[in-house]
Amino acid sequence: MPTPVTDADLVFAAELGQQLRVDSVRSSTSAGSGHPTSSMSAADLLAVLVSRHLRYDWDDPDNPGNDHLIFSKGHASPLLYSIYKAVGVVSDEELMTGYRRFGSRLEGHPTPVLPWVDVATGSLGQGLPDGVGVALAGKYLDELPYRVWVLCGDSEIAEGSIWEALDKASYYKLANLIAIVDVNRLGQRGPTEHGWDTETYRHRVTAFGARAVVIDGHDVAAIDRALAQAGDLSGEQPTVILARTLKGRGFSEVEDREDWHGKPLPAQMAERAVTELGGERHLLVRGPVPGRAAPRRAADGRAEIKLPTYDRGQKVATRKAYGDALTALGARPDVVAMDGEVSNSTHADEFAKAYPERYFEMFIAEQQLVAAAVGVGVRGYRPFASTFAAFFTRAYDFIRMAAISQADICLSGSHAGVEIGADGPSQMALEDLAMMRAVHGSTVLYPGDATSAAALVAAMADREGISYLRTTRGAYPVLYDAGESFPVGGCKVLRSSGEDQVTLVGAGVTLHECLDAADQLARDGISARVIDLYSVKPVDTATLAEAAEGTGGRLVIAEDHHPEGGLGSAVIDALVSTGRAELAVAHLAVREMPGSGTTPELLAAAGIDAAHIAAAARSLLT
Amino acid sequence: MPTPVTDADLVFAAELGQQLRVDSVRSSTSAGSGHPTSSMSAADLLAVLVSRHLRYDWDDPDNPGNDHLIFSKGHASPLLYSIYKAVGVVSDEELMTGYRRFGSRLEGHPTPVLPWVDVATGSLGQGLPDGVGVALAGKYLDELPYRVWVLCGDSEIAEGSIWEALDKASYYKLANLIAIVDVNRLGQRGPTEHGWDTETYRHRVTAFGARAVVIDGHDVAAIDRALAQAGDLSGEQPTVILARTLKGRGFSEVEDREDWHGKPLPAQMAERAVTELGGERHLLVRGPVPGRAAPRRAADGRAEIKLPTYDRGQKVATRKAYGDALTALGARPDVVAMDGEVSNSTHADEFAKAYPERYFEMFIAEQQLVAAAVGVGVRGYRPFASTFAAFFTRAYDFIRMAAISQADICLSGSHAGVEIGADGPSQMALEDLAMMRAVHGSTVLYPGDATSAAALVAAMADREGISYLRTTRGAYPVLYDAGESFPVGGCKVLRSSGEDQVTLVGAGVTLHECLDAADQLARDGISARVIDLYSVKPVDTATLAEAAEGTGGRLVIAEDHHPEGGLGSAVIDALVSTGRAELAVAHLAVREMPGSGTTPELLAAAGIDAAHIAAAARSLLT
Repeated sequence: MPTPVTDADLVFAAELGQQLRVDSVRSSTSAGSGHPTSSMSAADLLAVLVSRHLRYDWDDPDNPGNDHLIFSKGHASPLLYSIYKAVGVVSDEELMTGYRRFGSRLEGHPTPVLPWVDVATGSLGQGLPDGVGVALAGKYLDELPYRVWVLCGDSEIAEGSIWEALDKASYYKLANLIAIVDVNRLGQRGPTEHGWDTETYRHRVTAFGARAVVIDGHDVAAIDRALAQAGDLSGEQPTVILARTLKGRGFSEVEDREDWHGKPLPAQMAERAVTELGGERHLLVRGPVPGRAAPRRAADGRAEIKLPTYDRGQKVATRKAYGDALTALGARPDVVAMDGEVSNSTHADEFAKAYPERYFEMFIAEQQLVAAAVGVGVRGYRPFASTFAAFFTRAYDFIRMAAISQADICLSGSHAGVEIGADGPSQMALEDLAMMRAVHGSTVLYPGDATSAAALVAAMADREGISYLRTTRGAYPVLYDAGESFPVGGCKVLRSSGEDQVTLVGAGVTLHECLDAADQLARDGISARVIDLYSVKPVDTATLAEAAEGTGGRLVIAEDHHPEGGLGSAVIDALVSTGRAELAVAHLAVREMPGSGTTPELLAAAGIDAAHIAAAARSLLT
Repeated sequence: MPTPVTDADLVFAAELGQQLRVDSVRSSTSAGSGHPTSSMSAADLLAVLVSRHLRYDWDDPDNPGNDHLIFSKGHASPLLYSIYKAVGVVSDEELMTGYRRFGSRLEGHPTPVLPWVDVATGSLGQGLPDGVGVALAGKYLDELPYRVWVLCGDSEIAEGSIWEALDKASYYKLANLIAIVDVNRLGQRGPTEHGWDTETYRHRVTAFGARAVVIDGHDVAAIDRALAQAGDLSGEQPTVILARTLKGRGFSEVEDREDWHGKPLPAQMAERAVTELGGERHLLVRGPVPGRAAPRRAADGRAEIKLPTYDRGQKVATRKAYGDALTALGARPDVVAMDGEVSNSTHADEFAKAYPERYFEMFIAEQQLVAAAVGVGVRGYRPFASTFAAFFTRAYDFIRMAAISQADICLSGSHAGVEIGADGPSQMALEDLAMMRAVHGSTVLYPGDATSAAALVAAMADREGISYLRTTRGAYPVLYDAGESFPVGGCKVLRSSGEDQVTLVGAGVTLHECLDAADQLARDGISARVIDLYSVKPVDTATLAEAAEGTGGRLVIAEDHHPEGGLGSAVIDALVSTGRAELAVAHLAVREMPGSGTTPELLAAAGIDAAHIAAAARSLLT
């Protein structure tokens, strides 16, 4: 039996819950799409949260003391936008004419085109991991008492990323993180795996170190007690509120019924729903606001950075340069690093030693690794997340969503390509350039030496969007003097003359092979231009076009990557984009499944070593 | 205190454990790389398993009654290969001269180039989910009493995919699945998150529905009891053996020490290790073998398939054709389907209704969805796994590894592109073609109508490797007569004449826009060739080259995907691969972040609708 409501505030909250339901129905029916029933189940939870617990200054979304509210179940956007109406920041008219419409900020799933949205959601199981990142920032970087409230669906609890998030939340003692799980027992195509079995959920979240609170999600007094308990920061555990609810709650024709997921109510049905829910309301609510507070660390990017320097010819791995440069960037108080339990390989451990208070070990959980970066980025920090390049594939959905979240994050993937040698294909990352290039607005960098690597790490720290640095396992000669500049979107012409007959394009390890090939060709009297394509996206179209024109359209492109979507595509797409292009391209890439071996053996077997590059160049000239 | 060992078999197992350690040290030292200490911790566990519990006919790895042994901690390959020596299928010489060497089958991490390896491992957290797939096949398809034994590391328990696996293993009551967790407390860069806290692990795996057994992983009698208990199929729960072990066990210079992960012992140290471990041994062991047994369902691909037919002009969504064709393919007893809780959108639900005994609901856990496909594929079935195209990004690491596993699996991603409309960018899949094309040996198909979609679903069922079908949300006119053939690697020239001035290339929704654009251009007296590029990889280079040559090198390529790595790259790379190419290409793709809207609004905003295609064609002609 629900607790009888006598408190006036709770009566108001219950009324507000009905308003949120009515507006969820109205907005989705007006749009002709959306998820009203998934909104109705969580309406009471959010009504109590917003009216009584969420500390948020709606007139100042940038107030650093504000709590954070993340809809991990992003499809409940009608509920979120109905809250925005209830707090007065979105008009009823905008809600009714904007929701899911072209050009509107009220998109089908929430995105940060809205000032009150921290991260884009809609791919389930991501809002909670993102929230872990925000909570990490709150507890360890900002040192501010804001709370991070995350509304989760019960269906998304099946995503492994939810358990990565709870594991890290308890490991880092994030009492400032509260997950509210809307256990409405119905997914898209039918019942969820565990239905209303809140005891199973309780066992699981408790085992993962969270405090579990099981409530009736339509009992406003019970909700109020649970939220009050959860919002208390004195403990050391995250809280998971498991709220048993009814999907479509409040409208008898759809309540707790299957086949009503993601469907707006037809107009006449919507009218009956509004009537049954007590009619339209236009309550205006403002909950508590936080006091003014300043983060302990200004997320300030200004500092004098002294990048590491290397001597030309010295053999240094670009992953080592990553660690060195990242540590140098640590002079900026906004720079934060994290790694997936391989920091002694990626060299992020150098930063960890120098700035332990701004380093987060995420262990082997790459989804949470990227989500933590997105989350601390929400608070204005500049995250650098690293692991083996191959293992960023584990987090591709998170990287894709980070772009929609307008996150500014820096990723460094080490040990890329067959170059790694003996460990074999599972560790090789032969798809990462394709994957990262296809991310909207991304920057993809692949330095061939330590000097350029260090410069590019510094450049990443000021880039917008998703920046990706690909680094190499082995140590290769430094090619550039310290102080040389490497603009993103540029490239370096390392060999060039008026007699060049062919252009060799490489990056990373293949750049060294191109230089070697150019020497071999020179001995045969063939002059080759050599381009270091350290910036794969954006790419230096003008210099490439000039080289193509200057060498009769003849290019050899060599890449330690599968042939699709990497360096070759970047170059060819760029050249073709310039207008009518006449090209004769030899594209050398990893076309067969590699095994183990030494680096020279594997480069040769893949046909991307100096001998193959030189042979391809000769073929183009015959 | 370990149990005193009196039983002769256990004395032998303990000796075998020492041999496995010695050989792990010897092989990795000889190779100059590898993970001896991670092998030594698990040696006793595996010695008892292989000598007394694993039912496996080493002379007949194809025996359908064999148990399965998966090393989810693939870096313990020295241990696995030392077992192969101990059972006599790999010689000591091969172990000592082959391990991690170029051209050898004893790769750095196990791959199925070896007949005893089911799946490639080395990206942590995948062997157990793959094992769930094998166990699903054992219990529900083969109906054979084999067991699936999976050796896990403790570090990889941090991967969310492990929890997706245990959740599904308990949901499907997979008593035939046994995870053996080697809790050696040390990861690559230092201690694991939970060290030797086996109680936390016990709570977690119990909460996830598994039977937990905590043992001393060096007590052979305790191991023996635990394995006997775990191997009993009478229950309804998977078993997780949590074995407390010492990394580097048996060699005092490295035992339980940090900084010895992934490092072979230097030669002199290896000598001391072998001495301390009691010297080289050459025990030959054969454990129990299974009886001959036949799977209940012959994994037989032969059957008469009657594909669905559609009338030209009828509006049918390609995702609907997927469901129809998949259901038709169900006549083949080897065809199995699974979905990530969106089967009513992908139309996999049609198969589920027709063949419930061969359908597995994986709920919202895309990593496990793909792993289940890989696992049932190990048993010879032909899996079709479906979800929204956007959400296959969640499983990219699993798809990449599936290719290394030589898995033959079919993936169908629905609701691709801005075409989906109101739901917004989180649901759009604007990276899937790039991602899937970059997978080694993959097939990427993108039909424009229901007839071709159905034919391609049938073609996928016989393809080797990873096949991916991209389907569209909306219903569009059927373009082809029933019975038309759509070879993989082909394309269709839908409009063509001797006067063609430009070629329009589209696929999926943009094919219809290209046809519309051709009509618009025809009204202006411009003749355009139109190509349906339903096979994105492999691509029909000859027909594309012929079209380019026939239309003065002028092509407009329109794709509902980001510009990198998709249709445009496929076409341009193909044309450039033919030798000297002169091209004038207009490449229309989704270059800005889309929001919500109607399909026509979003196609227009992205510049990939008929009007933009026609305008681009005109520009190429001026």
